[in-house]
Amino acid sequence: MQYHIEVTIGLKDGMLDPEAATIRKALEHLGYPTVSLGLQKKFIIDLDEASSDEAYSKVDEMCKRLLANPVIHNYDIVIEESI
Amino acid sequence: MQYHIEVTIGLKDGMLDPEAATIRKALEHLGYPTVSLGLQKKFIIDLDEASSDEAYSKVDEMCKRLLANPVIHNYDIVIEESI
Repeated sequence: MQYHIEVTIGLKDGMLDPEAATIRKALEHLGYPTVSLGLQKKFIIDLDEASSDEAYSKVDEMCKRLLANPVIHNYDIVIEESI
Repeated sequence: MQYHIEVTIGLKDGMLDPEAATIRKALEHLGYPTVSLGLQKKFIIDLDEASSDEAYSKVDEMCKRLLANPVIHNYDIVIEESI
């Protein structure tokens, strides 16, 4: 079975995000003041696995080992079956 | 009124994505083969505007002028009212 997975990775609350701060300042200089601005990264993964539980645990391992840094990042995994 | 906006930016179909290709290869080396892997960037923006239409057009301008490169990127804007 093929699964379509979306992994969203962002910094944990309280972590400084200089990239977001810089973009926010640049927008302000262009005349677009914002109340707040945050950044996340999204991975869209198609995976062949026997079950959605297995797909979830595989993607969870991928996040822990490569995609995210569990010390500073939160991540969120959404799985759906592909047609 | 304060609006909570999520902007998702990704490469247009057919654009090469060396970053995604590298991550896909790295996952394969770690023992996690994937059918496909794509990358998107997500901006989470809080904005003070008079109406959701105005918020939309402001964010659309932000995307065109700074956040995305309309030549190579697609972007998608989702707006909801903050409480």
